Amino acid sequence: MGISGEAEHPYVPRDLKLPGFVPGFLSQSTILAVYGISSLLVVSFMWILSGRFRKISKVDRLVMCWWIFTGLTHIILEGYFAFSPEFYKVKTSHYLAEVWKEYSKGDSRYAGRDSGVVAVEGLTAVVEGPACLLAVYAIATRKSYRHILQIAISLGQLYGTAVYFITALLEGDNFATTAFYYYAYYIMANIWWVIIPTTIVVRSWKKICDAFRAQEQKKTKTR
Amino acid sequence: MGISGEAEHPYVPRDLKLPGFVPGFLSQSTILAVYGISSLLVVSFMWILSGRFRKISKVDRLVMCWWIFTGLTHIILEGYFAFSPEFYKVKTSHYLAEVWKEYSKGDSRYAGRDSGVVAVEGLTAVVEGPACLLAVYAIATRKSYRHILQIAISLGQLYGTAVYFITALLEGDNFATTAFYYYAYYIMANIWWVIIPTTIVVRSWKKICDAFRAQEQKKTKTR
Repeated sequence: MGISGEAEHPYVPRDLKLPGFVPGFLSQSTILAVYGISSLLVVSFMWILSGRFRKISKVDRLVMCWWIFTGLTHIILEGYFAFSPEFYKVKTSHYLAEVWKEYSKGDSRYAGRDSGVVAVEGLTAVVEGPACLLAVYAIATRKSYRHILQIAISLGQLYGTAVYFITALLEGDNFATTAFYYYAYYIMANIWWVIIPTTIVVRSWKKICDAFRAQEQKKTKTR
Repeated sequence: MGISGEAEHPYVPRDLKLPGFVPGFLSQSTILAVYGISSLLVVSFMWILSGRFRKISKVDRLVMCWWIFTGLTHIILEGYFAFSPEFYKVKTSHYLAEVWKEYSKGDSRYAGRDSGVVAVEGLTAVVEGPACLLAVYAIATRKSYRHILQIAISLGQLYGTAVYFITALLEGDNFATTAFYYYAYYIMANIWWVIIPTTIVVRSWKKICDAFRAQEQKKTKTR
């Protein structure tokens, strides 16, 4: 307990003011297990469901699993954060508040409500989250916009992650409680949103170029 | 002159600390005239040059004018800002420093080096600026990636502008010297980077969907 009688927060920088802070109740392993098991269930459900559609390749089915996972993460986890400025005051073991109390050990800008982080998370939750679910539908029904939609979302994820890391560097890159949390949460939890969107952009970019080349050839033949 | 003997800055909020601030030398009309006339020259040059290529529609030529204009703005103006943290201390009438001393009247976060603004401007200058010049080349030579590239850049511009406006709102939206500068600089100078990228996304999105539909039809016929 601090001088004021309030619980001291575990975050860095130490002079971060969080009046009314209530420590988390759930252990790190509980929080991760709930996220991991829910995600596994969602991904398994999508893998099985997508197998029932005809003409969908295994790569497309894997990509659909990614879109449902990342879409629900954006809408539920990041959506809660974006619209809950006082999550660190929550007095119960509300799972979503626990997630952000725990994640703030890797990046205290979440508890500190850094405007860059809130702007990126808000856009991710409100714009990109629903767009991910639309991508699942677009792939399943082979819409003509399925690849451009996937590129649009992936570029948004890459732009958001870039702003997220660059603003931290500009502000001194000193927001993690320990080196463990820096690498485990701040780096490892985010790096997937660099690797996977980049892979999807490359794949869908090629598909779009192929479609244009086919269209050009067709025109040339018609002449 | 302030108590310290230094020039007082004209920016809001008044408690913004800018040690070593040197006021601008050029008038608003001079700064705008240089930007306006240079842009007009660049756009005219592109309009004439693009007319010499065959098979390029007037709409594509207009779009090429936009890409050369916005690309050079990103690289030169925004590139200077992103890498000149001390532009407000410049003691000469260096044009690029003058631009940002003047623009900061509409948004003092530029002089104040807000990390969100610097991150967005850095990405815009380094990633999007050169990509705009590539878009001019891609349209001129009818590359198969011309539309997806235009969407990628436009979405980046839209994402950047969204972060720019949302962070300002989250931080209290009180960065303009007067209401005139708020509307003339902060709103009017940025709104084009909402309207034009949106228009380009809609146009190129349709072109990509058309290409996929043509490809699907071709496959169906082949069967």
